[in-house]
Amino acid sequence: MGRIGILKTPHGNVETPALMPVIHPGKQTIDVGKYGADIVITNSYIIYKNEELKEKALKEGVHSLINFDGPIVTDSGSFQLSEYGDIDVNNREIIEFQEKIGTDIGTSLDIPTPPYVKRERAEKELEITLKRAEEALEVRNKLMLNSVVQGSTFPDLRAKCAKIIGKMNFDVYPIGAVVPLLENYKYRDVVDIVMASVENLPPSRPRHLMGAGHPMVFALAVAMGCDLFDSAAYILYAQDDRFLMPDGTYKLQNLTYMPCSCDICQGYTPNDLRNMKKESRMKLIAQHNLHVSFAEIRKIKQAIIEGNLLELVEQRCRAHPYLLDGLRNLKNYIELIEKYDPPYKKSAFFYSGPESLNRPEILRHENRMERLPKKDRLILIDSFKKPYSKSIKNVLTDYGKKKEYDLEILGDFYRIKNELDKVKVENEQDTDNSTQITVVDVPFGLIPIEIDEVYPLAQNETSNYLDMDSKNNIKEKVNNYINNFKEVIISEKIIKTYDLDFEIEKVDIESIALNFDDKEKIRYIADYQFGEGAGVALFEGNVKIIKSRKTGKIRHVYDGEELIATLRASDGIFVLSMPGAKRLHQFFEYPKNRVVVNSDAEPFAREGKSIFAKFVIDIDINIKANEEVLIVNENDDLLAYGKAILNANEIKDFNTGQAVKTRKGDK
Amino acid sequence: MGRIGILKTPHGNVETPALMPVIHPGKQTIDVGKYGADIVITNSYIIYKNEELKEKALKEGVHSLINFDGPIVTDSGSFQLSEYGDIDVNNREIIEFQEKIGTDIGTSLDIPTPPYVKRERAEKELEITLKRAEEALEVRNKLMLNSVVQGSTFPDLRAKCAKIIGKMNFDVYPIGAVVPLLENYKYRDVVDIVMASVENLPPSRPRHLMGAGHPMVFALAVAMGCDLFDSAAYILYAQDDRFLMPDGTYKLQNLTYMPCSCDICQGYTPNDLRNMKKESRMKLIAQHNLHVSFAEIRKIKQAIIEGNLLELVEQRCRAHPYLLDGLRNLKNYIELIEKYDPPYKKSAFFYSGPESLNRPEILRHENRMERLPKKDRLILIDSFKKPYSKSIKNVLTDYGKKKEYDLEILGDFYRIKNELDKVKVENEQDTDNSTQITVVDVPFGLIPIEIDEVYPLAQNETSNYLDMDSKNNIKEKVNNYINNFKEVIISEKIIKTYDLDFEIEKVDIESIALNFDDKEKIRYIADYQFGEGAGVALFEGNVKIIKSRKTGKIRHVYDGEELIATLRASDGIFVLSMPGAKRLHQFFEYPKNRVVVNSDAEPFAREGKSIFAKFVIDIDINIKANEEVLIVNENDDLLAYGKAILNANEIKDFNTGQAVKTRKGDK
Repeated sequence: MGRIGILKTPHGNVETPALMPVIHPGKQTIDVGKYGADIVITNSYIIYKNEELKEKALKEGVHSLINFDGPIVTDSGSFQLSEYGDIDVNNREIIEFQEKIGTDIGTSLDIPTPPYVKRERAEKELEITLKRAEEALEVRNKLMLNSVVQGSTFPDLRAKCAKIIGKMNFDVYPIGAVVPLLENYKYRDVVDIVMASVENLPPSRPRHLMGAGHPMVFALAVAMGCDLFDSAAYILYAQDDRFLMPDGTYKLQNLTYMPCSCDICQGYTPNDLRNMKKESRMKLIAQHNLHVSFAEIRKIKQAIIEGNLLELVEQRCRAHPYLLDGLRNLKNYIELIEKYDPPYKKSAFFYSGPESLNRPEILRHENRMERLPKKDRLILIDSFKKPYSKSIKNVLTDYGKKKEYDLEILGDFYRIKNELDKVKVENEQDTDNSTQITVVDVPFGLIPIEIDEVYPLAQNETSNYLDMDSKNNIKEKVNNYINNFKEVIISEKIIKTYDLDFEIEKVDIESIALNFDDKEKIRYIADYQFGEGAGVALFEGNVKIIKSRKTGKIRHVYDGEELIATLRASDGIFVLSMPGAKRLHQFFEYPKNRVVVNSDAEPFAREGKSIFAKFVIDIDINIKANEEVLIVNENDDLLAYGKAILNANEIKDFNTGQAVKTRKGDK
Repeated sequence: MGRIGILKTPHGNVETPALMPVIHPGKQTIDVGKYGADIVITNSYIIYKNEELKEKALKEGVHSLINFDGPIVTDSGSFQLSEYGDIDVNNREIIEFQEKIGTDIGTSLDIPTPPYVKRERAEKELEITLKRAEEALEVRNKLMLNSVVQGSTFPDLRAKCAKIIGKMNFDVYPIGAVVPLLENYKYRDVVDIVMASVENLPPSRPRHLMGAGHPMVFALAVAMGCDLFDSAAYILYAQDDRFLMPDGTYKLQNLTYMPCSCDICQGYTPNDLRNMKKESRMKLIAQHNLHVSFAEIRKIKQAIIEGNLLELVEQRCRAHPYLLDGLRNLKNYIELIEKYDPPYKKSAFFYSGPESLNRPEILRHENRMERLPKKDRLILIDSFKKPYSKSIKNVLTDYGKKKEYDLEILGDFYRIKNELDKVKVENEQDTDNSTQITVVDVPFGLIPIEIDEVYPLAQNETSNYLDMDSKNNIKEKVNNYINNFKEVIISEKIIKTYDLDFEIEKVDIESIALNFDDKEKIRYIADYQFGEGAGVALFEGNVKIIKSRKTGKIRHVYDGEELIATLRASDGIFVLSMPGAKRLHQFFEYPKNRVVVNSDAEPFAREGKSIFAKFVIDIDINIKANEEVLIVNENDDLLAYGKAILNANEIKDFNTGQAVKTRKGDK
């Protein structure tokens, strides 16, 4: 759910995820812009309460007051309200004040209900927060506005709040009152709150995890869809002689060595710092803290680009067992995460532990397995070198010639006896009495060899030492899968590796007719990629398969002289041609795989121009970023086809930016 | 097994772990000293082969040639031998040459046998390597010498080589020919090779993992006892536009954002670098690579100081599944690692995944549980807030008064029926018919409440979501443990949490007499810390327990007016007084808990001066760093007592430095 975005403000655009250093309007001594800040946050209530600051801000504006040219967000007095219980300004006054001093993004006076309060209180306070949000919209003139999601530790209240304010016209949605949870390492609850909020907020608006300033939580928060962070930590920790790091905090008193690669850590020793005056030391540690925090944001953005943010999260969450708690809690939101996860990525899938079993790729593979053709007989083969199909083919077709070699690799085979007797395939007509060869491997479990080169089934790496969660996960998958077949033959190695428990009898693998048909392969890949039946629909007729001379891999599929689709070498998925798109369009019923554009966009689409989100009037809600999609008009006439840039929810909600990169239009 | 050491050379001392940048004697353009190098490595064969370099080196010395004032290590032509198959210098010549040019530490011409060769070849080449090692010692005059451990991927050959050269008088022991393994991410094999080598090398000499220059392996290697690394990677990767990071490598072509906090990553964008000339860009990337590499070494040293190096290793090894392979392979060496692991540390034990179950602390706890008194009846209680004893005591003693509250926390209790019938306690006389209350928790499994404040049983944190390895680990421990008791009562929560399978009957917890006796507690702690029977030996007589007024915790134990021992608040272990030390000395037979010093050291020991390793003539081989030990003379007269600084193997092998910090001498 992590994304790179642009937040537009009167003082310029900011790329998100972004960290907003907190600036004290009266006492700032560090020029945060110098260390990478593109946007900052300050407190309008502090300015409002101090006559001198107030006068200057009203006269010269807040940008001059804090000496920062870029976008400025101001908080209201909510924090003071939560800390001291009472403040002397009302919602209307503080919003008007923020507009007057030229804030870019202001905040209404919400009630920051603390965690673990009684439900009654959370509900009552939420009502006030919602009323003030409404009032804020009435009061503001041009001021951009935050509206904070509250609801204490009740995920349903957070969800309700997000739904209501999400439908109103706010510019940024902070998630509030999480500081006490962050301070007490209650990352499990943070995950529940953030996920409940984000699920119900409009994807087109940035979410700000208020008060999250420690770099150890950035990766996890971004992976949950948070776009903005504010850091008072850089200065507060520095005042307390503490060094922020993406894997925790170091106290100067405990340091013998400087912990990072920044110029402060390169240039000074802990003793140098200890021997300095407090003020000089504080500034240097604050610089370190800013260096580290901005570096972490850059590293996260790079991970989003490469498609391995969850790998980074899994690294970061090893820093503390309660962060691991947060990570492990993500599995409860896997279905939501899967919707926002692009199915095809640049980077390989790296297994880092049992938590990796809860990645969206694993769930998606399980779901897509349902799309594949059904057969009668199953041979389950233990994994070896990827791509499996090539290795297995080499071994099996040579069987007999070099028997010893084969046996060593494949081991003995057994027929599962009890399964043979009790199982019935439900739709007899769906089966063609041929054999399915499926590889068993961690972490994807079951990989029919026809699709073994489709991303990420070939593009993944796992430890050779299995943990019990992996073993058990595969065991369950095998136990379920075999119920789909009339006859199951399984290699001894699999039975042993995954502690499977069947009544078995030995069989001679030579007696099994094997089918390595390229036509079968392209049919499987298309079904897996687009949905059940796509393979037959696309590749009917006089199918001609063209392979790469160099690699021997399938490159193009023709019907006679007509190109239907091209198999992309990098991730093994099909890119359609216009005839292919037409076949798919004819086969799948509306709205499957469709992005529907309005009549204004129709001529541009037909010319092959890319589709902007604002022209999209309907969409198949299952479409994900990087998927190949059909572009149609309101009458479901096929206008073009292309690659989705965002997922369906995002395309529906965004009013700016590209939705689909069109590959070709139908003029 | 990671350690901070001092390597003494003619050109000064170097603190290890240390990274030695590789300097090309003819083409170096980067002043590595500026970026943190205290020691460098260069190649004597390249100098030898180039007339100009050779002449200059012989005339002005190698330090002048490569313009570096600190210690210089030179490699022989072994690398060239392995790359090109043949070189034109012999062992004697290259050693004499290294001595002539003023190298600090030279290297003999060993044969770097590649991985996965036939055993016969590995054995033959090892013989040559060993002969040349012997010859090197004969040839050298004052030159310090490396002797490289070879033996391909045969751990037993590595062990044999290490044993033989380890007994000879070399100064540094490189572990050679691992580069092909590192390049192919065969970290599992690297672990086997390094552990086989290190186990058999003398602890007092540094080990150099030759060719390991990528920071992603430093933490793992240091945790296996490696002290020196050499990095050509910083420049080779830079030439190839690649950025080293502790969690992998980034290619410039794939970078949208700079990945770290160093001044290069702060000061330039990837586009800035792409638009530069190759040579300028290369220098900047090399600087980044050095910054990151030295920062990682510092971070590792800090982790050694804090006692959480394995936590860092567990973080780092999530960067690639094959590093995870290496980490998981460490479990096969856990007994060796446990010997070198100090039982008491500054930092808490953080659980990061199933791999944490293989930490030395867990094995040690399992072993030390054997030392505890045996009882007849067991109550197993589910974990809650630490320290458990306090929470449990509060709940149990109040039982009856606020029944509802209690039930909610403790749940229902069951008697295990079949165990009751079938189990017999072996030594009837060892039991006193009272009740053992033991907490069940991840990751330590079983924690008798008497010792629940001893490090690390109170000082650990775990995720609240259990992985299956944890569950199963606890399940097995409970199943074994209950066999020691005649009657076992267990809370329902434990049965459910860990999927335990017993025949049970419900019991009323109120009917069980509970024993929370401080005398029992100190006895348990002493047994756990020093060994079976220590508690009775130390605390017989008129025991008086003094508690802290502030915390209510046990502070001192007296026999009448005589202080026997003080319980240290930070880690809950006993620090002896002289009377306590005498009791322990009398109770335990020689050599248990003893460090034996020679007669020269006796007067110093009696005066309470610390013990240097060179005066130690015998030692209990089970002594570990940070343990409380008895200092005796050859007649086993107690001279003093103190805290071991090193483990027994180290104390035996070192000829310099402190072995024991004496607390008090017996004048």
